[in-house]
Amino acid sequence: MTDLPHFDSEGHVHMVDVGKKPTTHRVAVASAVITMQPSTLQRIKDRKFAKGDVFELARVAGVMGSKRTADLIPLCHPLTIDSVQISVEPIDDASVRLVARVSTHGKTGVEMEAMTAVMAAGLTVYDMCKSVDRSMTIGPVQLDEKLGGKSGHFVRSPQK
Amino acid sequence: MTDLPHFDSEGHVHMVDVGKKPTTHRVAVASAVITMQPSTLQRIKDRKFAKGDVFELARVAGVMGSKRTADLIPLCHPLTIDSVQISVEPIDDASVRLVARVSTHGKTGVEMEAMTAVMAAGLTVYDMCKSVDRSMTIGPVQLDEKLGGKSGHFVRSPQK
Amino acid sequence: MTDLPHFDSEGHVHMVDVGKKPTTHRVAVASAVITMQPSTLQRIKDRKFAKGDVFELARVAGVMGSKRTADLIPLCHPLTIDSVQISVEPIDDASVRLVARVSTHGKTGVEMEAMTAVMAAGLTVYDMCKSVDRSMTIGPVQLDEKLGGKSGHFVRSPQK
Amino acid sequence: MTDLPHFDSEGHVHMVDVGKKPTTHRVAVASAVITMQPSTLQRIKDRKFAKGDVFELARVAGVMGSKRTADLIPLCHPLTIDSVQISVEPIDDASVRLVARVSTHGKTGVEMEAMTAVMAAGLTVYDMCKSVDRSMTIGPVQLDEKLGGKSGHFVRSPQK
Amino acid sequence: MTDLPHFDSEGHVHMVDVGKKPTTHRVAVASAVITMQPSTLQRIKDRKFAKGDVFELARVAGVMGSKRTADLIPLCHPLTIDSVQISVEPIDDASVRLVARVSTHGKTGVEMEAMTAVMAAGLTVYDMCKSVDRSMTIGPVQLDEKLGGKSGHFVRSPQK
Amino acid sequence: MTDLPHFDSEGHVHMVDVGKKPTTHRVAVASAVITMQPSTLQRIKDRKFAKGDVFELARVAGVMGSKRTADLIPLCHPLTIDSVQISVEPIDDASVRLVARVSTHGKTGVEMEAMTAVMAAGLTVYDMCKSVDRSMTIGPVQLDEKLGGKSGHFVRSPQK
Repeated sequence: MTDLPHFDSEGHVHMVDVGKKPTTHRVAVASAVITMQPSTLQRIKDRKFAKGDVFELARVAGVMGSKRTADLIPLCHPLTIDSVQISVEPIDDASVRLVARVSTHGKTGVEMEAMTAVMAAGLTVYDMCKSVDRSMTIGPVQLDEKLGGKSGHFVRSPQK
Repeated sequence: MTDLPHFDSEGHVHMVDVGKKPTTHRVAVASAVITMQPSTLQRIKDRKFAKGDVFELARVAGVMGSKRTADLIPLCHPLTIDSVQISVEPIDDASVRLVARVSTHGKTGVEMEAMTAVMAAGLTVYDMCKSVDRSMTIGPVQLDEKLGGKSGHFVRSPQK
Repeated sequence: MTDLPHFDSEGHVHMVDVGKKPTTHRVAVASAVITMQPSTLQRIKDRKFAKGDVFELARVAGVMGSKRTADLIPLCHPLTIDSVQISVEPIDDASVRLVARVSTHGKTGVEMEAMTAVMAAGLTVYDMCKSVDRSMTIGPVQLDEKLGGKSGHFVRSPQK
Repeated sequence: MTDLPHFDSEGHVHMVDVGKKPTTHRVAVASAVITMQPSTLQRIKDRKFAKGDVFELARVAGVMGSKRTADLIPLCHPLTIDSVQISVEPIDDASVRLVARVSTHGKTGVEMEAMTAVMAAGLTVYDMCKSVDRSMTIGPVQLDEKLGGKSGHFVRSPQK
Repeated sequence: MTDLPHFDSEGHVHMVDVGKKPTTHRVAVASAVITMQPSTLQRIKDRKFAKGDVFELARVAGVMGSKRTADLIPLCHPLTIDSVQISVEPIDDASVRLVARVSTHGKTGVEMEAMTAVMAAGLTVYDMCKSVDRSMTIGPVQLDEKLGGKSGHFVRSPQK
Repeated sequence: MTDLPHFDSEGHVHMVDVGKKPTTHRVAVASAVITMQPSTLQRIKDRKFAKGDVFELARVAGVMGSKRTADLIPLCHPLTIDSVQISVEPIDDASVRLVARVSTHGKTGVEMEAMTAVMAAGLTVYDMCKSVDRSMTIGPVQLDEKLGGKSGHFVRSPQK
C-alpha cells in the first residue's frame, strides 16, 4: 500500500495503470539551482545584453527536454503537454535558479516533465560554460509544487 | 579567446568544429547526490535484497540517458561511446552518490554524456520513489574528473 | 496582442499554454514543390512501373516525419494524430507537388505536422535522386489550408 | 473492404484516419517465446537470486520499447498508453514466454505496442546472453488477445 | 569469464568497455520467419504486382529500425553503420523469411542491429496485415551468421 | 551504373554499403529561402534588438535537426558530425536565406544533414511567425556546395 508503485505485487517493474484515473488539470513546478564562479555568471549576463544568450538556449533545451521525458525515464507514461514555461531567477552573484512550470490535462501528473525540463536546461548551461568553469554544479534539483491528481496540492517548504 | 565557444564570432550559437582535433581516448566522471528521507533510502535498500531494485533501474536509465545526450543538449556533438559504468556510493542514512564513468575514443570529450547519465539516473530514482517522498532532491550534479583532450586532466577537489 | 505568441511577456521562449483551448477537429494541408531535371523525373516514373518507387518511400518518410514534429520544432506541442495522407501531384515534366493532409482532435493545430511531413518527404526524394541530380530544389514549402481552431478556415490563394 | 487498410484507394501507404472512431478502453496481450540452451536459462535464473537479473532488464526494455512503437512501425498512430505489464512465464528447461499486456483509452488499439514490447524484451534477453549462447531464438512472437474497438474480442487459440 | 558480460564484477548492468578492441570490419546476418494464412501471403504478393508493396515497406522499417538499435536495447553501444540490406526469401505458401545483413567498421559487432532490423520489418508486415490475419506469427528470429571481431566466424547450422 | 543507388540490383531499397569508401573530410552547404510579409520580417528584426530572437531559435533547431537526419531520411547512414554552422543572410525586405554548413570526417557525405538543418530552421521560423503570417513560404531549399568524397567539388551556379 505504501510501497513503491512502479513495482507490481511480485516485485517487478511495470508502467502503473492509470486507466481508471480521471483526466484532470495537472501542474508541476520544479527547480534547479546552478552555482558557478561569479565571473562566469557575469559573463553570461554580459552576453545577454550583447549577443548570444545562454539562458535563452537553456530555456529551449528545457522545453524540448520536457517533451523527451518518457524516452528518458523508463516507467513514465507518454503524455501530451499543455504548456512549458521556464524562468531564470537570480539568487546571488554566483548562482541562479531555473524554474520549470509544466501543465497538462491528463490521467497522470507532470512532475517528471518539470524535473526533466530543469535538468536539460541546467545541463545546457553547464555545456555552454564548461570551457570556462568546469566546476559549476547543478542542484538541488527538486519538485517545488504540484497541483491536481489524487495526491492533491503539494508545496515544498521554502528554500533554506 | 576566453569567451564561450558555443557562440561564434558574431555571437550566434553553433556546433563547434572539432574536425581538426585528434582522436584520443577520453574519459569523464560525473556524480549526483540524491538526498531523501532515511525511511525512503531504507525502503530502497530493503527492496534490493527482496524484489525490485531501484538503483539497478537507475543504472539502466543512466546508461540509456548517456546515449541520448546529443538529443537533449542542443550543441553537443553526436558521438560513439566505448563504455558507461554507473555506481552507487553510500554517503549516509539519507543520501547516496550516483557516479557515472563514460569513455570514448573521439574528437570531443564525454563530460556531457557523464553528466546526462547521472541526471537520468537520479531522475529515475526520484520517479520510482516520489509517491512516498516527494521532497527528495538531486544535487549537486557535477563533473568530478576528465581525462584526455587538449584541456588535460581535470580533477575536482574533494566533496565538502 | 499581435506579437509572436512563442515569446512570453518578458520576451522569453515558451511552449504556449493550450490548456484552455477546446478539443476540436483540426486539419492542415501543406505542400512542397520538387523541381528537378526532366530526365530525373522520368527516371522516377520509370522505376514506379518497374521496381523501386521513390515517391512511395517519400510517402513513408512523410508519415514518419509528421510523427517527429515535436522533436524537431522546439516549441511545438506533442500531440496525437488521427491521420496522415501524402499525395504526389504532377505539375510539369520537371516538377511535382507533394501534398500532406494531417488531421487530429486536439487543442492545437497540425500545421507544423503537415509542413514537417512534406519536408521529410521532399528531403527523401532529394536523398534518393541526389547522385544523379544534385541541383534538384525543394520549395515553395507552404501551408495550403487549415481547418478548425480559433483562427478558423484558412485557404491559401491559388499557386502562381 | 477486406483489403489492407494501410493502403489507400490508389494503393499508396497512409496513416489510416481514426478520427471518427470512438475513444474506448483497449487492451492487447502479445507474447514471445525465447528458446536457449538449458545452461543459459539456468545461468539467468542463478543470477536472479544472486546479482543482475536478465529478465528484469528485459522488462524495462519492453516497457520502454512499447513507448517507441510509433517511431519504429511506419504507419502506427502516435498514442498515449495507460499501462504496460511484462511477465515471464516458464515453459520448460530451455524456454520461457515473455508476455506483454498494454492498455489505453484511445481511438486505435495497442496491438503493435504489445508486439513491440515483447520484441524489445526478447532482443534484450538475446543481447544479454549472446556471448554465451549465440544460437538462442525468439519466436513465435504473436498477438494473444485483444479487447476493445470495432473488431471486438480476439483470443488466440491455445499454444500448440 | 564465461559469465554474462553486461553485468560487472559486482553484478550490476553496465555498457561493456570496447575501448581496447580493434576497429575491424564486422557483418551480421539475422532472419525472421513470418507465418500467415496462405490467403494473406497471396494478398501481399498480388499487391506487389499491382499497387502497394508490403515487403517494400517492411524493408524500409527494417533499415530504419537497425538505426534505432541503441535506443531500444539498453546496453547496446551507439555506432555507425556501413550498410543494411533486407531480403525476403520465399519458404512456402504460408511463410517467408526476412533476412537482414548489416555491416560496419567498428569496435563492436552488429548482431543486435541485424536482429532489430528483422524484428522491425516483421512487425511492420504484421501491422500491415493484422486487420485480415490477426493470428500471423513472427519467429524464429535468430542470428544466422556473424563475421569479424574476437569471437570469429559464426554460422548457424541450417534451418530445421 | 547511373541508376539510383538506394535501390539494389533487384529494385529494392537498401542502405548503400559505404564500407569500402575512405574516411575523408566532407563538407556540405545547403540553403533555404524564407519569404514572408515585410511586416513579419520587420517584426523578427525588431525583436532581435529587443527580446526574443526568432533566427537564434531557428539556428538551434537547425543544429538539432541536423543531428536527427538519420532518423528522418529512411536510407541515410547514421554518422558523427564535426560542426554545424547556420547563418542568416538578408535578401530583401521580405526574405532571408538560411544557410547551413555541416562538416564531418567520414565515409559518406553530409548533404542531407545540411539540407535537414535548413529545413528544420526554416520550419521553426514558420512556427514562430505563423500566427501573424500564415502565408510565409520556405524554398527553394537546395544544396549549394559539397566538398570531399568520390564525386568531388560541387558548386551550384549562383541564385537566379
